[in-house]
Amino acid sequence: MFLDHIPNKKEITETHEKIKDYIHHTPVLTSKALNKMLKCELFFKCENFQKTGSFKLRGAANAIHSLSDDELKNGVATHSSGNHAAAVALSAEMRSAKAYIVMPRTAPEIKKKAVAGYGAEIIFCEPTLKAREVSLKNITGKTGAVFIPSYNNYSIIAGQATAAKELIESTNKPDYILTPIGGGGLTSGTALSVNYFSPETQVIACEPVGADDAFRSIKAGKIIPMINPTTIADGLLTSLGDKTFPIIQQYIKEIITVDDESIIKSMRLIWERMKIIIEPSSAVVLAAVFNRNELFTGKRVGLILSGGNVDLDNLPWN
Amino acid sequence: MFLDHIPNKKEITETHEKIKDYIHHTPVLTSKALNKMLKCELFFKCENFQKTGSFKLRGAANAIHSLSDDELKNGVATHSSGNHAAAVALSAEMRSAKAYIVMPRTAPEIKKKAVAGYGAEIIFCEPTLKAREVSLKNITGKTGAVFIPSYNNYSIIAGQATAAKELIESTNKPDYILTPIGGGGLTSGTALSVNYFSPETQVIACEPVGADDAFRSIKAGKIIPMINPTTIADGLLTSLGDKTFPIIQQYIKEIITVDDESIIKSMRLIWERMKIIIEPSSAVVLAAVFNRNELFTGKRVGLILSGGNVDLDNLPWN
Repeated sequence: MFLDHIPNKKEITETHEKIKDYIHHTPVLTSKALNKMLKCELFFKCENFQKTGSFKLRGAANAIHSLSDDELKNGVATHSSGNHAAAVALSAEMRSAKAYIVMPRTAPEIKKKAVAGYGAEIIFCEPTLKAREVSLKNITGKTGAVFIPSYNNYSIIAGQATAAKELIESTNKPDYILTPIGGGGLTSGTALSVNYFSPETQVIACEPVGADDAFRSIKAGKIIPMINPTTIADGLLTSLGDKTFPIIQQYIKEIITVDDESIIKSMRLIWERMKIIIEPSSAVVLAAVFNRNELFTGKRVGLILSGGNVDLDNLPWN
Repeated sequence: MFLDHIPNKKEITETHEKIKDYIHHTPVLTSKALNKMLKCELFFKCENFQKTGSFKLRGAANAIHSLSDDELKNGVATHSSGNHAAAVALSAEMRSAKAYIVMPRTAPEIKKKAVAGYGAEIIFCEPTLKAREVSLKNITGKTGAVFIPSYNNYSIIAGQATAAKELIESTNKPDYILTPIGGGGLTSGTALSVNYFSPETQVIACEPVGADDAFRSIKAGKIIPMINPTTIADGLLTSLGDKTFPIIQQYIKEIITVDDESIIKSMRLIWERMKIIIEPSSAVVLAAVFNRNELFTGKRVGLILSGGNVDLDNLPWN
């Protein structure tokens, strides 16, 4: 079953060992042009090259590989319009388990195709959180499938922690690690890995101003959910959960917010200069380095590029 | 001065040694999804990650580093609307030499900016080959700058040969190496490297049907220049030269032609599946594997992705 407590150092190491045959050890890229432009040394952890196109596979693979054959006999289920859906579908396929994915009818064709391509059964619903939750409850009730949450779960967090662990191992303790923040799965995992494997490194979470619930929650000392978030960074619309928030509250000293204009500019700059495809949610970390450039001058800065799933027919600069 | 004969094995090895501090040793990427789709093992040599965004730097760096300080005292010059322009500009900058680049007024802003960014002086002309040649003659006459040809030159060919040399070294003798063909600099260099370092490998050149002068020249046994080529692959508009043609005639047994529709489809597939940015000219090699799939089934196939310079405001599927 899933972890029932904040993963410790040994558990994150074991998680990495457990999932390593199911994920890519993604490369860390550098760009002299961007280093020169920003007067610091940047290390890009390329989860856009991860299987399924995002870091989400790490958490989903760990959660699903934490289940016994018996627990898995009725399959797994989740609701997601995005990267978590494909991650759960592929992870279930790897264990020959059935996956039920609740998706809004309005999800992009390419995401529906990816999920179907991994053999998952898609249940379409109206594009509201309420409809998604009702559909999910129906399907788990009917089938007995195990719900795989997208971030508010300690096994998911342990999986996401492995991206920062790899980044630390290949960059020899950077001064900073910057991560995008949505529901907080990647950020809390990154905070734990840094605390265990490179405590001198400072983790900064980066958030769109149009979905700045983490910024406001940290300030208020309690979870303030986001009502009607609006940002181009469609992976960062979710609000913190009761498992991710306390970890973030303990370890994250700073959250940098960035506007959509700077997210789009940073995304395009990475496409043009590095010739790699990242989604808008990934670009918030570079936008944050631009936004607070004085803080990073002369420093070694790790940036987690969370994913590369973009609708090529709807690019933000068109 | 430049090489005055077809480079031999030792000269290509020396070329690689000479330029290696000025170029990136680009990675070779693989994609399980594409291997599965095409039933063969593909090895993508990523010259889109090369400095200046294309393989052209290899040839330009070698040509310019072949010049003595005295030969270089009046600078270098070329005419190009594309990747060769940036390659010459950067290579000149590396030797603190002046570069004069004749560019058509109509060249994309981003290419003009890149060339200017390397400190070159741009001379604008009308967008015809005639106007380019007249402008070039003017500037070399006036300044004494050395002309750096874009492909029909043995030092350029020796430089371009190093891409295939690296690909061979990191993939242990693939069955095939596929390369895009325009003026034939990359193809003739690839043919030589394969002949010297992996003679069992077969080189196939891949060409857009709308600019198929190499296909027709090989068939006719003499150079048939292309009149009004039309293809989305804007790096492959040029015709073979008297130095590239004989090498290609000797070593290339097959040229596969592909239409623009399959080039665009292959380009998009690489963007979506591999999350890397390639330009249309790079996509002809994957389009060729689709086109002649039975030939490659079960084989190990190296593909040279020649560059990644794309106008993001004008994507071919928009």
